[in-house]
Amino acid sequence: MSIIAFIGLGHMGSPMVQNLIKHGHQLYVYDLDNHAMQHLTKHGAIAAKSPADAATHADVLYTMLQTDEQVKAVCLGANGMFQHAKANALYIDSSSIDIDASREMHRQALSAHIRMVDAPVSGGVAGAQAASLTVMVGGNQENFDAAKPFLECVGKKVIHAGAAACGQAAKICNNMILGISMIAVAEGFALAKKLELDPQKFFEISSQASGQCWSMTHYCPEPNLVANVPSDNDYQPGFTAEMMLKDLRLSQEAARNAHAATPLGAAATNLYALFANLGHGQLDFSGIIKMIKGIEI
Amino acid sequence: MSIIAFIGLGHMGSPMVQNLIKHGHQLYVYDLDNHAMQHLTKHGAIAAKSPADAATHADVLYTMLQTDEQVKAVCLGANGMFQHAKANALYIDSSSIDIDASREMHRQALSAHIRMVDAPVSGGVAGAQAASLTVMVGGNQENFDAAKPFLECVGKKVIHAGAAACGQAAKICNNMILGISMIAVAEGFALAKKLELDPQKFFEISSQASGQCWSMTHYCPEPNLVANVPSDNDYQPGFTAEMMLKDLRLSQEAARNAHAATPLGAAATNLYALFANLGHGQLDFSGIIKMIKGIEI
Amino acid sequence: MSIIAFIGLGHMGSPMVQNLIKHGHQLYVYDLDNHAMQHLTKHGAIAAKSPADAATHADVLYTMLQTDEQVKAVCLGANGMFQHAKANALYIDSSSIDIDASREMHRQALSAHIRMVDAPVSGGVAGAQAASLTVMVGGNQENFDAAKPFLECVGKKVIHAGAAACGQAAKICNNMILGISMIAVAEGFALAKKLELDPQKFFEISSQASGQCWSMTHYCPEPNLVANVPSDNDYQPGFTAEMMLKDLRLSQEAARNAHAATPLGAAATNLYALFANLGHGQLDFSGIIKMIKGIEI
Amino acid sequence: MSIIAFIGLGHMGSPMVQNLIKHGHQLYVYDLDNHAMQHLTKHGAIAAKSPADAATHADVLYTMLQTDEQVKAVCLGANGMFQHAKANALYIDSSSIDIDASREMHRQALSAHIRMVDAPVSGGVAGAQAASLTVMVGGNQENFDAAKPFLECVGKKVIHAGAAACGQAAKICNNMILGISMIAVAEGFALAKKLELDPQKFFEISSQASGQCWSMTHYCPEPNLVANVPSDNDYQPGFTAEMMLKDLRLSQEAARNAHAATPLGAAATNLYALFANLGHGQLDFSGIIKMIKGIEI
Repeated sequence: MSIIAFIGLGHMGSPMVQNLIKHGHQLYVYDLDNHAMQHLTKHGAIAAKSPADAATHADVLYTMLQTDEQVKAVCLGANGMFQHAKANALYIDSSSIDIDASREMHRQALSAHIRMVDAPVSGGVAGAQAASLTVMVGGNQENFDAAKPFLECVGKKVIHAGAAACGQAAKICNNMILGISMIAVAEGFALAKKLELDPQKFFEISSQASGQCWSMTHYCPEPNLVANVPSDNDYQPGFTAEMMLKDLRLSQEAARNAHAATPLGAAATNLYALFANLGHGQLDFSGIIKMIKGIEI
Repeated sequence: MSIIAFIGLGHMGSPMVQNLIKHGHQLYVYDLDNHAMQHLTKHGAIAAKSPADAATHADVLYTMLQTDEQVKAVCLGANGMFQHAKANALYIDSSSIDIDASREMHRQALSAHIRMVDAPVSGGVAGAQAASLTVMVGGNQENFDAAKPFLECVGKKVIHAGAAACGQAAKICNNMILGISMIAVAEGFALAKKLELDPQKFFEISSQASGQCWSMTHYCPEPNLVANVPSDNDYQPGFTAEMMLKDLRLSQEAARNAHAATPLGAAATNLYALFANLGHGQLDFSGIIKMIKGIEI
Repeated sequence: MSIIAFIGLGHMGSPMVQNLIKHGHQLYVYDLDNHAMQHLTKHGAIAAKSPADAATHADVLYTMLQTDEQVKAVCLGANGMFQHAKANALYIDSSSIDIDASREMHRQALSAHIRMVDAPVSGGVAGAQAASLTVMVGGNQENFDAAKPFLECVGKKVIHAGAAACGQAAKICNNMILGISMIAVAEGFALAKKLELDPQKFFEISSQASGQCWSMTHYCPEPNLVANVPSDNDYQPGFTAEMMLKDLRLSQEAARNAHAATPLGAAATNLYALFANLGHGQLDFSGIIKMIKGIEI
Repeated sequence: MSIIAFIGLGHMGSPMVQNLIKHGHQLYVYDLDNHAMQHLTKHGAIAAKSPADAATHADVLYTMLQTDEQVKAVCLGANGMFQHAKANALYIDSSSIDIDASREMHRQALSAHIRMVDAPVSGGVAGAQAASLTVMVGGNQENFDAAKPFLECVGKKVIHAGAAACGQAAKICNNMILGISMIAVAEGFALAKKLELDPQKFFEISSQASGQCWSMTHYCPEPNLVANVPSDNDYQPGFTAEMMLKDLRLSQEAARNAHAATPLGAAATNLYALFANLGHGQLDFSGIIKMIKGIEI
């Protein structure tokens, strides 16, 4: 049993906390949203007065936040967790943030004598609830080994991607491919339909041929072809277009800083930006097929 | 045993002829390239004097050509096969051509009392040699049933995609997704490397996650990750960038005529055009990762 | 005074006929739309029974049609104008059609002993009414010289672009640049606004700097900066998005056939396709700024 | 006469210093490159020991640096100029940096009681030498008025774009349009050529029509059409592809942070990234026509 300071109690963080509690850990939690905190106290968590307050009690610091600014505000400075943490505390950051920001956090942790891993997840709210997330972890072997038992409370696959920030890198490279291939599949079905090719027939053929993608066979944007996916439920998320757009923007930020060319990544980012700007950011990301088809959007 | 007039004896047509002979059919063959014809006579084919000459002997007309102009020149007009074919002959066109051109051929066949299927293939030269092609077939059920035994001589999967030209539609929609996803995977690995994420590690993660594509798991453009693929052999084809570009252009032609939006299809087409214009059209299509990475291209 | 057979009496053709009449020519007119014909008889035109009927009377054949199929149907075959025209008649085609189709028409004209120029126009309905069109002409010098007096009845600038189909080539290359630069300017103003840079200020700066384009200084998509443009009139056309999309598609068809890479041309084509598919094809083409900005589209 | 601390003595900074000296100002200069400093002492500048040293003497602080990190390192912290500057000193930053970084600098200046304007320039090395730069200025009216006399020593057009960071915003929005339109013009000429349309003819037509852009009429990427441009000198810069890429990346960073969609801006950025990755970053940015045409690149 460990004592964990967990900051960030949104749609993802809240079920993650509950899963950590189920494994017997003691959780000090904090969020600007008081309701979220109160809700978790019913499950046995202790509401902290601040991130620093939470940190003073904990062996493990855990953040699940939206932006790198939030991560920095929670961890750094006089009121940050790093200042108030026990010597040699372990810090796990499951927020999806920019590569450079994550590297900076690793540097800050090192100089504060905090052991850190970045550990962004995929699998969405459903995965967080079912403790079936995939966790991509960046940090040295020793820190990975230390973090693994905690990550296995929230996820099913816990993978050591490499050194500092490699968890973030793995996630955004994967999600860039995902965002592009989702639009590719959407374009394929939209074109098939205009060519009077039955979607069911096209699915049968392409899902077993060289066009096969996870986006097609596990999350098909064309309705009525794959069971239990958002396209069968009027594109209720799932993983929203806004969240995909956030990850694509992180990929483009990383590409910019690393001087990489990602022409289709850039195009996909902007197609999701157009889709979001049209007011559909809260639809599932597979809903972009509506914009590609152009029907009654 | 049937008598087949086979026109078009290139890298694909030649092994297809040999596989038809192996199944006991008698082949009249024709090609502008005399060597190709002579070569096949050694395998038991009979060299015809012209497409029309071949047609006069045959129950089945079969074309495997490069362009719709070639298909029209071989089949239509006073010297075309249709004029000289037996009543109710069966015509199989395995050429990859434009949807509208294929529809026109179906109309011409109908008015000449020829039963037609379009039957483009995937699987490349290796698939043609091993008789393991995938064949996507367009035409009515009766004609599909008639063509199937012949197509099973050259391919392993013979799929009825739908009505006239639906074989072509299935192929170009599939290959459009393939072309886009290949570049997506290339961008993913190129970015991963610049972010100091080990390619092997990224493959392990993404191949089992939402970024998984056939392009990654069966034909990975990053070397040393998947066995027996062109990336391990300095991008010797396989399926050349020029051939992918041809199929992508067919997809864009179809999209244009059908008024479909295919923004990533268009972007992928132009990236392959840039790659071909840089002089690399004869490399395998997975070689586009060289342009994305920008090393010593 | 010449006798002219004019086929195609739409928004462009109708005022062009009236301007030819004003210069003293006698016009035999034909259109599938009987109303359009009757309307022009009030201005002194003679309604013909068919294109062929019109052609029998005429020194000059003139078409202003939507598609190359229409042009071929009107000119070729047993009922086409070429068969019924006087020896050595002059044929002017102001339709905007595909390069290859235009080249084919030049070949057909040559073998029918008809002197031909392709002469697509820019300037829109307002230009047709004011006889202020720009006319880009393809054909040999002699035919250009013969056509020029007629073209000067409908346009202000009549330019000899080169040999057969060069008029079409000039128009689509120009309009491809126009379509791209219109979106570029739209993106520039959309971004400026989000960066809290006053549009008026940005216009002052960029219109006199290296970002200057005709799209900005003569047809600005941002309202209230340039007088008398569609952006000041809620994007009433002008030149519709559908018409721009048609020209962009012609450019992509030409690029496809000529094996040219046009990455931004392809992207612009697909952005206009998305815009049209969203139901905005009848807005002026500068209205695409609404999709880029994403406000209440 | 004022005393100016000038930091950043590269290709741009060095001639700007000389022009300020010509107008009678006294210059304390600093650069990590000692040679650059020594060179300017021959023109009457005084070599400072550090930015802070320079700042202690000066009424005006002036930076012309490559990155926002450099700007921050020079201005902020215990050794930064702001700490050592006279009360109410004026700070001019002509570096091209990210919008958010520039806003941060304005905030830092405000809290250090420094009056600041951002003042990025266009016109390149030639413009810096000839004191003919265009200067886009962001800051309040009072600070603009204070900075204007100094900016008029280095530039010909000094424009007040708006509040803090609006100079940066104006520059990147303008240059994003420029980068896109340069590629648009390159694609137009490349396609024209493949369609056998004479470049000279196309220039005559399009430069007076709706395709006209500054990129075409003042900086044409097709050789032999406009006098004294890099395309006539084998694409020797001028303004390098790398510099254009830097500005395009700034535009995409700004778009990302402001949640703007810039699909063609993103595509242009990546085409320049491909071009630079192919090893051509030091060519003039108009040289991208070589990649579009695909000849012997």
